[in-house]
Amino acid sequence: MVPGEEQQADGDKKLELMRHSAAHVMAEAVQSIFPDAKFGIGPAIENGFYYDFDLPRSLTPDDLPSIEAKMREMIAADSPFVSEEVTKEEAREVFASQPYKLELIDDLPGDKVTLYRQGSFVDLCRGPHVSSTGEVKAFKLVSIAGAYWRGSERFPMLQRIYGVAFDTEEALAGHLKRLEEMEARDHRRLNKQLNLYIAPEEIGGGLIIYGPKAGRIRATIEEFWRQEHFANGYELLYTPHIGLSKLWETSGHLDFYKENMYSPIDVEGQEYYLKPMNCPFHILAYKAQLRSYRDLPLRWAELGTVYRYERSGVLLGLLRTRGFTQDDAHIICAPEQIEDEIAEVFRFSIHMWKEFGFDKYKVYLATRPEKSVGTQQQWEQATEALRKVLQQQGVEYELDEGGGAFYGPKIDIKIEDAIGREWQMTTIQFDFNLPERFGMVYTGKDGREHRPYMVHRALLGAWERFFGLLIEHYSGAFPVWLAPVQVVIIPVADRHLDYARSLETGLRNEGVRVKVDARSERVNFKIREAQLEKIPCMLVVGDREAADSTVSIRLRRGEQLTSRSFDEFRETVRVTIKDKEKELRL
Amino acid sequence: MVPGEEQQADGDKKLELMRHSAAHVMAEAVQSIFPDAKFGIGPAIENGFYYDFDLPRSLTPDDLPSIEAKMREMIAADSPFVSEEVTKEEAREVFASQPYKLELIDDLPGDKVTLYRQGSFVDLCRGPHVSSTGEVKAFKLVSIAGAYWRGSERFPMLQRIYGVAFDTEEALAGHLKRLEEMEARDHRRLNKQLNLYIAPEEIGGGLIIYGPKAGRIRATIEEFWRQEHFANGYELLYTPHIGLSKLWETSGHLDFYKENMYSPIDVEGQEYYLKPMNCPFHILAYKAQLRSYRDLPLRWAELGTVYRYERSGVLLGLLRTRGFTQDDAHIICAPEQIEDEIAEVFRFSIHMWKEFGFDKYKVYLATRPEKSVGTQQQWEQATEALRKVLQQQGVEYELDEGGGAFYGPKIDIKIEDAIGREWQMTTIQFDFNLPERFGMVYTGKDGREHRPYMVHRALLGAWERFFGLLIEHYSGAFPVWLAPVQVVIIPVADRHLDYARSLETGLRNEGVRVKVDARSERVNFKIREAQLEKIPCMLVVGDREAADSTVSIRLRRGEQLTSRSFDEFRETVRVTIKDKEKELRL
Repeated sequence: MVPGEEQQADGDKKLELMRHSAAHVMAEAVQSIFPDAKFGIGPAIENGFYYDFDLPRSLTPDDLPSIEAKMREMIAADSPFVSEEVTKEEAREVFASQPYKLELIDDLPGDKVTLYRQGSFVDLCRGPHVSSTGEVKAFKLVSIAGAYWRGSERFPMLQRIYGVAFDTEEALAGHLKRLEEMEARDHRRLNKQLNLYIAPEEIGGGLIIYGPKAGRIRATIEEFWRQEHFANGYELLYTPHIGLSKLWETSGHLDFYKENMYSPIDVEGQEYYLKPMNCPFHILAYKAQLRSYRDLPLRWAELGTVYRYERSGVLLGLLRTRGFTQDDAHIICAPEQIEDEIAEVFRFSIHMWKEFGFDKYKVYLATRPEKSVGTQQQWEQATEALRKVLQQQGVEYELDEGGGAFYGPKIDIKIEDAIGREWQMTTIQFDFNLPERFGMVYTGKDGREHRPYMVHRALLGAWERFFGLLIEHYSGAFPVWLAPVQVVIIPVADRHLDYARSLETGLRNEGVRVKVDARSERVNFKIREAQLEKIPCMLVVGDREAADSTVSIRLRRGEQLTSRSFDEFRETVRVTIKDKEKELRL
Repeated sequence: MVPGEEQQADGDKKLELMRHSAAHVMAEAVQSIFPDAKFGIGPAIENGFYYDFDLPRSLTPDDLPSIEAKMREMIAADSPFVSEEVTKEEAREVFASQPYKLELIDDLPGDKVTLYRQGSFVDLCRGPHVSSTGEVKAFKLVSIAGAYWRGSERFPMLQRIYGVAFDTEEALAGHLKRLEEMEARDHRRLNKQLNLYIAPEEIGGGLIIYGPKAGRIRATIEEFWRQEHFANGYELLYTPHIGLSKLWETSGHLDFYKENMYSPIDVEGQEYYLKPMNCPFHILAYKAQLRSYRDLPLRWAELGTVYRYERSGVLLGLLRTRGFTQDDAHIICAPEQIEDEIAEVFRFSIHMWKEFGFDKYKVYLATRPEKSVGTQQQWEQATEALRKVLQQQGVEYELDEGGGAFYGPKIDIKIEDAIGREWQMTTIQFDFNLPERFGMVYTGKDGREHRPYMVHRALLGAWERFFGLLIEHYSGAFPVWLAPVQVVIIPVADRHLDYARSLETGLRNEGVRVKVDARSERVNFKIREAQLEKIPCMLVVGDREAADSTVSIRLRRGEQLTSRSFDEFRETVRVTIKDKEKELRL
């Protein structure tokens, strides 16, 4: 522990006590408003606290200010937190009308339990707490959610109130601003405005349908991705979405990964599984021919859609789905090529992230987990190889002890977005398991059979999550090269429509995605709509523009109109798209 | 019937009699070689005949010449075919040692049956036949296959001998040459040489893994396909491969299509099905927003991989698979737009086929089948709309009575390949079923809700089948723009490697797929290998080429070497690829 860290840890601990105490104060406030309230549990969490209540009616956000007001009264009263050890028998009397507390008492070990009292409220609680309610500092109640008692659908649904709490009003204000930013960037919220995708319950949870606008973005990204991969020595495979159970037995998925797999499909008495990973198919393609050292390394990529079972409760927009398309690749190489190959994958990954406008990232080296295959020597060698690559590249990294896959150590790259959040995206994973299980071999220079090394790599990670990141990072204002519509042309009056159409043709011939808004609406209305759609560029064309072959340009965020000759504008758009600039530079 | 057709029909009928008689002669020949043979059935088929036998040992192709020789003796003997009507009782005595014939006798209606005799052979047969064995003309036995008695796995496997028979030796020779051509072009045979795909039994029947070379071709075609679709007003959707049972109930697939669907997957007590079609997903995307007449027509395309159950016995290479990627599209339009839209789809389809080098096709208009939904009026209107479009386009078409889908009439386009075979590829299908079932609506100019029309369209059909067609049409020698490797550079000696590498860079910068064959093998060996791989163009470079900045060019089919300056060659390749020419024009 370096100097300062201890102090920091102390501060964190004090903050946690304060947050936990704030939960008790909130419970007291709720009790004062709903005397019949039944109480669940109320812990401190990251940035704040919550408490679960069973109340005679459903809360609405309008209830929060009055609960907050009561809390402030109780904080002003500065009542001490007093602890008391009692027998379970005594506790049962105290909580005679609190069924959830009674359950908790039954579950606790030993004969005695601790109670904490402040003001008129008493709780079953190990503590500790701050000394008095006056020590609860800057706080705010932020939301209400349903939460099953004990987290299980078999038990009643309670109402959970979330609060945030900090040492200072500044820290609270900073946090609330960040929450607001996150809320404004939330891909689910922006999707309502931009109509990019749907996740209709008619098809089942965690499955996404991409509409025309998202389809255009995805096709553009995928083609860019393919061309970059070809240029970097990758080849492309296409494989099916199902495979016989025997395949997943050989691969070990039915041993190590079954809880993440969908239940089987019966065909003529044989069981097929939806693929949770693409690897076994690539391995069969490898084994379909005799391979020599001359053929290595092989870099085989696939945009492979996989299906993994997730409980419906954990599904979250584009970030946690059941079906997702990995930008997968497998590097199959001779042992002596492994360091060069990993260095190359790392370099290529960073290059790709830069192309998408991300240049801040953190690197983690994840080592052997408890449940794993392979010998200690294999793990050490492989981990050392990964470490060496990172050192040679001069990359700072953190160690993620025990965070590796069961089949080998890995390098993870977390990408930092526009508001400083880290997103786990790229993963580069060593695998000793599959080459062994499938008996992969190649003929070496010595004419003998050798076992190749294998690396799994997902660069962007999964399309779904990557698209979610893009939406949130750019607040839905996609860089020009990705925008579904790049330019909208708005004629001032019907007589300018011909000119508008001629510009449309001129831009379309240059490969620009352009539309003319020919509706009989006012110009300002059309501009406002285009801005809501986050179309990078609006061209307003009237008499003067038609006469001079110019365009009046308005960008999606700016207010001012800039005038340019059409030829100049077209060239600017072309260069902006080619260079993947976020906005037009005028 | 126009003059001449009657004669033609007479000729066809005579040919069929002759082929049927040839089957009897073959049976007699087999009986003379295997006196204990048990006989199944032996009909005439297209181009020839077969007979099924239960024999004491398995036949090999080596048996065919001796059976043919016996047949020729019997034909030379010119024995008459004599028919006789007998009671079933009498027939049972004749066939006392023929269990299959006894079964057939039991199944026949009435008390009497007909026998046909020639030479020492008697058969249970309705006839008619030619008058004597001498009338059996040019024939040849071509193959042996296993065939279940009565076509069912529950019965014994018999041995089937196939023969072909024609009026004249010339017609026979022509047919055999065509068979040979088909055999040489068979995509399964070419795949062994070109290593394009595998269909390993480890993953299950009818599922294809595309290796790097096929992956390159597919990515090239798909990107071309996408760009053409965008340019023609289509938008692109991406949808999942599974959906809840409720969705397939709503769509009617579980009523009308269940036998083609895989068995369900259980997730948290709900049933999911692999999608056999993409339509319901596109419809949900349509319904996700309010739609107005201003939004129509919508042209939504998807490269959607679907899964349909087929019995393992009918799977056939790339031509009949269980998983395949349709180049699907749905046109959703107002009723008054339907003719324009269908005309446009038709035009676009023919345009695309031309781009792939196919300009011969036949068009079929398929009408209401027995099992179908929709009113008679709807069918008449829709069929009339399709007919009108074909007439307006000046397209000749044939009627396929009752060949429509259960949900509407359709236009099918069959493409003619290099050896004149027709391949059913494009289909344009009207649908009254789904808009109704899903309650699709749009707001018309009148402010009221209207039901849109919907057209399903698969243009190339399915990737698998289309790729099979490409392989067979081009005998694996893909047009330059599609060839996985377009140019191979062969240095004469190691000292020419630098020059070879500089050419490689020059071509790669132009977007050409090029490789240098730097192995220490002889030039002729490398050329032979490149020709086997069907690489369009080989550049042999030695002292003279390096000194003059030239290349010696050899095309995959030609023998001669042509010399060109490298700059000229590069430009030729560029234009060849851009224009989608099959071969380089030197």
